[in-house]
Parts: sequence; C-alpha cells; structure tokens
Amino acid sequence: MGAGTSSDETGPAGPTLRRETSRLLSFSDGVFAIIITLLVLDLQPPRVGRGQLLHALVEQWPAYLAYVTSYVYVAVGWLNHRAAFNRVENSGKALQWYNLAVLFSTALLPFATSVVSQAMRDGDQADQRTGVVVYGLVGVLVSVSWLGLYHYLARHHDLLDQTVPLRFFPAERARAAIGLLGYALAILVGFFTGPLFALVIFLLLPAFYSLTSSGLYELRRLRHPRR
Amino acid sequence: MGAGTSSDETGPAGPTLRRETSRLLSFSDGVFAIIITLLVLDLQPPRVGRGQLLHALVEQWPAYLAYVTSYVYVAVGWLNHRAAFNRVENSGKALQWYNLAVLFSTALLPFATSVVSQAMRDGDQADQRTGVVVYGLVGVLVSVSWLGLYHYLARHHDLLDQTVPLRFFPAERARAAIGLLGYALAILVGFFTGPLFALVIFLLLPAFYSLTSSGLYELRRLRHPRR
Amino acid sequence: MGAGTSSDETGPAGPTLRRETSRLLSFSDGVFAIIITLLVLDLQPPRVGRGQLLHALVEQWPAYLAYVTSYVYVAVGWLNHRAAFNRVENSGKALQWYNLAVLFSTALLPFATSVVSQAMRDGDQADQRTGVVVYGLVGVLVSVSWLGLYHYLARHHDLLDQTVPLRFFPAERARAAIGLLGYALAILVGFFTGPLFALVIFLLLPAFYSLTSSGLYELRRLRHPRR
Amino acid sequence: MGAGTSSDETGPAGPTLRRETSRLLSFSDGVFAIIITLLVLDLQPPRVGRGQLLHALVEQWPAYLAYVTSYVYVAVGWLNHRAAFNRVENSGKALQWYNLAVLFSTALLPFATSVVSQAMRDGDQADQRTGVVVYGLVGVLVSVSWLGLYHYLARHHDLLDQTVPLRFFPAERARAAIGLLGYALAILVGFFTGPLFALVIFLLLPAFYSLTSSGLYELRRLRHPRR
Repeated sequence: MGAGTSSDETGPAGPTLRRETSRLLSFSDGVFAIIITLLVLDLQPPRVGRGQLLHALVEQWPAYLAYVTSYVYVAVGWLNHRAAFNRVENSGKALQWYNLAVLFSTALLPFATSVVSQAMRDGDQADQRTGVVVYGLVGVLVSVSWLGLYHYLARHHDLLDQTVPLRFFPAERARAAIGLLGYALAILVGFFTGPLFALVIFLLLPAFYSLTSSGLYELRRLRHPRR
Repeated sequence: MGAGTSSDETGPAGPTLRRETSRLLSFSDGVFAIIITLLVLDLQPPRVGRGQLLHALVEQWPAYLAYVTSYVYVAVGWLNHRAAFNRVENSGKALQWYNLAVLFSTALLPFATSVVSQAMRDGDQADQRTGVVVYGLVGVLVSVSWLGLYHYLARHHDLLDQTVPLRFFPAERARAAIGLLGYALAILVGFFTGPLFALVIFLLLPAFYSLTSSGLYELRRLRHPRR
Repeated sequence: MGAGTSSDETGPAGPTLRRETSRLLSFSDGVFAIIITLLVLDLQPPRVGRGQLLHALVEQWPAYLAYVTSYVYVAVGWLNHRAAFNRVENSGKALQWYNLAVLFSTALLPFATSVVSQAMRDGDQADQRTGVVVYGLVGVLVSVSWLGLYHYLARHHDLLDQTVPLRFFPAERARAAIGLLGYALAILVGFFTGPLFALVIFLLLPAFYSLTSSGLYELRRLRHPRR
Repeated sequence: MGAGTSSDETGPAGPTLRRETSRLLSFSDGVFAIIITLLVLDLQPPRVGRGQLLHALVEQWPAYLAYVTSYVYVAVGWLNHRAAFNRVENSGKALQWYNLAVLFSTALLPFATSVVSQAMRDGDQADQRTGVVVYGLVGVLVSVSWLGLYHYLARHHDLLDQTVPLRFFPAERARAAIGLLGYALAILVGFFTGPLFALVIFLLLPAFYSLTSSGLYELRRLRHPRR
C-alpha cells in the first residue's frame, strides 16, 4: 500500500493488512504480559526450617530489588512498543522479524534477573561478577534488538502513519544506542570495580528510558492534533 | 483531545488514541489472566511416600483456602479494572504508569499467597505471623496502587467518558481507602492476637469489595441510560 | 438495555456494554489459553541417571495420557465458552461471576491432572483411588459451574442475541448435567472397582462433550441464517 | 455463508461469525505467546557451589541453543498461522479442531526442547539419541498437524477470502510435507549416525520454513492488490 492510499481505510488490501498489524500487537501484548508476570515466579517462599521464615524472607532482598528493576524495564519496553507501533500503519515480513527479535531478547530478562539475584544472594565475588555480566549482556541484546527495530522504521517511512515526524524514529534509535552504551558500561564497571556499582546502573537505565520515552510527543500531539 | 470532541469518533487524533487505550486494556487483561492462573501453580501434588497421598492432600488445606481467597481478590481486581477503564476515554503517560503500578502490586499476590499458605502448613507461630504480615503488606500495596489510580482519575475528569458522574471515582477512592485500612488492621490483628483472625479478615475483604463494587452504578445505567 | 433496543448498535449505552463483553471475552480467552498451555508444564524430562532417559520417558505414560485428556477437556470448554458467549449480547455483574466460576473450576484441571498422573505412576492402589477421586471432583466442579452459567442464561433470554432459539441454553444445561453425572459416576467406579475404569470414563466424557457440542446448531445456522 | 455473500460485511450471520474467527485468533495468539515464553523457563540459573556459576552457565550451552532453535520454530509457526488465517473468512467446527491440533502439537515443543537440552548436557550417547528422537517426533507431530490444517483449507475454498489464489494452500501443504520428511530424516540421522547431525537439521528446518514462508505472496499482494 503506497503512501498515496495510506489513509484510505477502504483501500483494496486495507482491512487484511490492518488485521495483520492487529495480530502482531495482540501477540506482542501477550508476550510482554507473560514476561512481566513470569518475573514474579522468581519470588518463592524460601524453604527453611520452622521459625526462620522472617529471616529468610529478609535475606532474599536481592530478589525483590531485581524484580522491581526488571518489572520497570519490561514495562518501559512495552510502553516503547506501544509508542512505536502506534505510528506504524503497515507491517511486512521484515518488521515481524524485528519485532520477534525484540520479544526474544526481552524474554531473556526473567532468566538474567534470576541469575543476578541468585548470585548476589548465594554467590561469592566471582559469581556476582558473572551475574552482573549476564544481566548486562541481556541488556545489550535488548538494546540491540530495539536499535534494529528503530533503524528499520527510521528507514521505512512508508510503513508509518504519515503524520509521524521524520525525526521521530531516528531520535528513538539514538535513545536505544544510549541504552546499549549504558549496559556495556555496566558490564565493564561491574567487572572491574564491583557488582554493586553495576546494579546501580541497571536500576538507573530503565528510569532514564522511562523519563525520556515518547511521552512528550504524545502529549504534544494530544494538545495540537495533526497541526 | 478536549471535552468538546470527546464523543467524536472521527476526531483527528481519535483512532490512534483509542488504539492506545485498547492496548492498555489487552495488556492488562493478559496480566490479570496470567496472575489469576499462576495462583493455581501453588497447588502441587505433594511429594510423599506411597499410600500417603490422601492424607498429604488433606493436610495442604491452607493452600486451597489461600487459592480461593486470592482468586476472588484478583477477580475483584479485574472487575474493578474493567469498571474503571470502561469510563476512561483517553489515556496518557501518567495513567499508563498508575495502571502498571496496579498490575505490579497485583502480580505480587501469588507470591504472598504462597508464603502464607506454606507458613500455615509448615511453620511455627512466628512463621505464621510472618506469612500473615507479608500477605497483609501486599494487600496494603494493592490498595495503595488502586488509591493512586482512583485519585488520578478523580482529578482528571477530562480523560473520562463525559457521562460518568463526578462522584464516581471519589467513591471508588473511598472504597480503596477502606481496603487499605482493612489490610493494615489485619496485619495488626495477625501480629498481636493470632494469624487465624487475620486470615478471616483476608477472606472478608475481597467479599466486601465484590459486594460494593460498581455493580449498582452499572445496573442503574443499564436501566436508565444517560439520564 | 431492554429487549426492544438490543439490536440497536448505536443505542445509548451500546458501545460501552459491547466493550465490557469484549473484555470478558479477551480475559476468558487469555485464561483458557494459559490453562491449556500450563498442562504441558506437567510434562518434564525425568531426572534420572545416565543412560536411563528412554526407560524413564516411557514410564511416565500416564502423564501423556493425562495431558491429552485434559487438553481435549479444556479445548471443549473453550469451544463451549465461545458457543455460549457468541449468543450473549449484554453482560451484567452476575454473568461476570458465573463466568469467573467457570474459569476458576477449569483452572483446577492442571492440578488435578498432575495429581492423577503422579498417583498412577508412583502411587499404590490407595493413592490411585485418591487421584481418581480428586480428578473426578474437579470434573464435578467444572460441570457445576457450567450448569450454573447455562441455567443463568436459560433464565435471562433478554441478555441474548434475539435470534437464539429459546431451547438452546436449556439443552446446553442438560448436557452439563450429564457431565456432572458422568464425573460423579467415575468417582464411584474408581473408588469401588478400580482406577483404570474411571480413567476410561475421564477419556470418554470430553469426547462426548466434543461430539454433542453446539456444532449442529452452528452448522444449521450457517446454512439457514435467521429463519 | 456461501461464496456469493462472502464479501458482504452486513450479511445475516456475518458479524457473529466474524467474532468467532476473531476469538479463534485471540485464543491462538495467546497460546503461541505463552508457548514461546514458556521456552525460557527451561533456562534456569544452575544450582552450584560458590564460585562455579560462570563455569556452570557455560556448560548449559545446549539449553541456549535449544532455546534459540525452538523460539525460531514457534515464531515461524505463529507467522504461518497468521498467514493462513489472514486468508480465512469463515470458521466452522472442523477448522477449530484442526487449529486446536496445531496448538496441541506446538505446545509440546517446550517439553521436547527441555528433554533434548538436558540429554545433551547430562546424558550419555543413548540418552542423547533418545532426546533427539523425542524432539524429532514432536517435530513430526507439528508437521502433521499443519499438514492437516492446510489440507482442510485447500479443500474448503469457500471458507477463504475469495481473492486467495487456488494454489496457495496446496503450496503450503507441500511445505508442511517437506517439514514432515525433514524431521523424520533427522530422527533416522540422529539414531544411526549421531545426535549432533540431527541437531543441525533441527536448526536448519525452521530457517527453511522462515525463508519459504508466505512472504513472497504477501509482498506481491501489497504491490498489486486484487489484480
């Protein structure tokens, strides 16, 4: 469907393509919903002797911290997904695979969360370094997959709602690149200076994403629609 | 989108915003569906020696009770969510995060359910007190997140369907505050007098929510639409 | 919305109510999808010594049989759900709770499946009898919840698509009652004569449901719409 | 609904049937989303002594490989499902069961993935052969279920969007038959020459499916709609 007919709801191939995009969205919403809920499976009542539940629950604080961090990370990922695909009018095979890559890397977060929280709780210094590197690598992978998706959309303006400003997806791509650098930095910091510094970066990165996410655009658009 | 165009289905930014709200709903429906089904994962066939299955199944009665209680609690949460978002026409970034906070706190319920049911089954008096406090704290957290959402909607009438009475969300907010007090009370009661009293409050609170939920409004609206 | 306006798509409270029903459907679809997929979690690679995998995999045949039986049972449940709610135009608070009861009882199937398959594999005669009774009781519970839903819909013809024949839901209710008797019979048979006879009934009941499900109505309706 | 009215959106039984198909899609999307996310549950932080996390994480490389392979396989399955049902206008009872068979066989993939990855990691030669056969058998089952679905749709052109070329589903059926042969071959190869050769075939088959999937048709249709 060319740019000339992109706003034509009754165009020849229109409804079918719209249904395809809608299934991409419902499938992705499902995967994000499952990932964000699977994170909680890492929180388990500790198997301890009688009378030691309170102590054991307090001791698994890294699991709670990891849960919060990863929850915010996945939530931001879903908000980014929503913000990106709200601007997409048509989806082809390539976009499907870019999207599947984002879901693939995001689905690794519960595993990485589990590794790092177990390492902080039970491991020695070497294990904690390993845990931090694993989480950082998954963070790098997630950033790379977003970078790919944003790059593709920045280069295929014909797939987008024609009111999306040309600079939107290049800006998003820059944001993903910053995330990539951030997680790479956290790996180095965690490896050379200590896992706790890396954990702080892991906590800050989703906050950064959340604050810089496309809210401003949306807000502006709400106030001055299609001007 | 201002109040003046809120009922205009073909308004400029209309369909896109509608799609955003619809993804918020489908994502939330997914998370609620997963949470309510994850609760059942806490029910496991006991690993016991041959010939002791019946006895062991009967002994895990706290797990069944906890399952029923938490199922009703999550179900009421979903009904509240439905009742609230049926009245929302537009959703911005802030509403997304209030919603994500509700999903976050609700997702902790399977964990809290597991902790309390394991403590009642295997723990001593101190463990049971701990279990009750954990469940109560999650109940407080859930109530606080609903309080935040209702407070936000009570203050942003422009996001709502213009036929929603002004007093609707303040009334819901009051209901959430009662829940907050109820769970706080259950923690105190469980801590000072005994876990069983707290369990009774845990059972009663979802029943209270269920009975007072927005059914009356809906029923009245069904009979006298937009009067 | 009274019977007089039930086919009026643009009626005052119309779209909102339609959205409510649509969320009931998407939530229920999610729960059924999760339940049917959770069944597979009971299939795990056996933890055995080197070289014994094949033997151990063959030995867990009751788990495969239980998986197939419960898969068909949940699938039939979903088809019934679809067939029932295709005929529902409006949904109120009571219908929500009848639906939540169906989801509640269905969500117990993975647990019951796990209990019976573990008992058949590792238990003695008493354990197997217990397993059969647990599965049968969950089957009774599922039948009772469907009976309640069908009874409610049989009594509230105003909630339905006005082209649904008056005898549709009474017929469905009879089918649920037969299922209730079937599972009760299986419990007795399993208890007094032996678990294997009960398993055969468990296998046959979903087949019966599948064959008698509303396919005939739908087929007839496809051929002679609204006569 | 006969072929003559298939493009009539306001035809008598139209909207209801459309809702049925839409529920089939949302249920299937849910199941695919859960299956693809359950795969990650097989990735667990290894339970090892202090200081051995890195070594243990590296040692479970078969689990990562199996995860990637199965993720791509399920993703291709979902893309095929999307491509097939985009062309379906009406769905009857038989199509429901063909679809449920596809979901059934696909849901076995996490189990088969777990079996083969555990066998490669911990098992001896015999276990690895068993693991490969189990994965291959599930692959055969998945192919058979797709073969059934495509065969049914190739024979029921009246259920399809009338613009779908007559040769579309026969071509898809051939593709499924090739997959069937591929998995059967992998079983033989794995049994007689060694599990690693079979793993290579398992890796290549989803790649083959991905490259040959209906992308070309869709692309062509996008460019020359309904010619």
